[in-house]
Amino acid sequence: MRKALDAAQQAAQRGEVPIGAVVVREGQLLAQAHNWRETWRDPTAHAELLALQEASRRLGGWRLDGCDLYVTLEPCPMCAGAAVLARVRWIYFGATDPKVGALVSRLQLLDVPWNHRPGITGGVLASECGTILSEFFRRLRLR
Amino acid sequence: MRKALDAAQQAAQRGEVPIGAVVVREGQLLAQAHNWRETWRDPTAHAELLALQEASRRLGGWRLDGCDLYVTLEPCPMCAGAAVLARVRWIYFGATDPKVGALVSRLQLLDVPWNHRPGITGGVLASECGTILSEFFRRLRLR
Repeated sequence: MRKALDAAQQAAQRGEVPIGAVVVREGQLLAQAHNWRETWRDPTAHAELLALQEASRRLGGWRLDGCDLYVTLEPCPMCAGAAVLARVRWIYFGATDPKVGALVSRLQLLDVPWNHRPGITGGVLASECGTILSEFFRRLRLR
Repeated sequence: MRKALDAAQQAAQRGEVPIGAVVVREGQLLAQAHNWRETWRDPTAHAELLALQEASRRLGGWRLDGCDLYVTLEPCPMCAGAAVLARVRWIYFGATDPKVGALVSRLQLLDVPWNHRPGITGGVLASECGTILSEFFRRLRLR
């Protein structure tokens, strides 16, 4: 999650909402990404989606068996859905997202018996993951 | 939907699961895409996601206000979530997807009061949209 936080920090420096994600398999970092929505003007350029895409490029296949996704904020429906499609083993997230969180907050996407369902653990470094976001928005309002 | 079916047909010729999508605004075709998952080895390379990305490139922004998404098969959670993020006005889909359909079949993603919720109309050229898929899988089994 520290690596995901590093990515979130880079997003903030680029003026992007600071959310970061990494994909790890057997202790190896396969992908690290942050949110690029504003810069790329792409509604789908979320950290998780980009990290999953990078990991599948690295592994040369779309099945990310045995891979774990770490993300600083609870994934939205798009990203949670992508993790299911990619057959991610486990999703670790930091802060919860009361607005669009699709794992526990707004929707419980993994309660549906999909063909594959990653395990989930929330609250990992939640305070740090949440603070980087609240600080970003506080500064934005001050401008 | 005819244009989405054309894209699905191209997917089948490439050995991809034949699902096609287009994005239209005010009668203008902004994007046309099909599923590329196997060729690109990318779990996120669904027709809808690619069409939304192309449309946002064409429009130069991530907000697809006033845009409608046409897709031959009911979207999965990832793609339905992406349509919400992109602020698509309306989603028209052909066949329903009892396995992973996230609009009416397996999940009713738009029953959640998200900030933005596209309208939905299902069953558009449903028979043709379904047949192209069942034919594809029938041939695959015969091989």
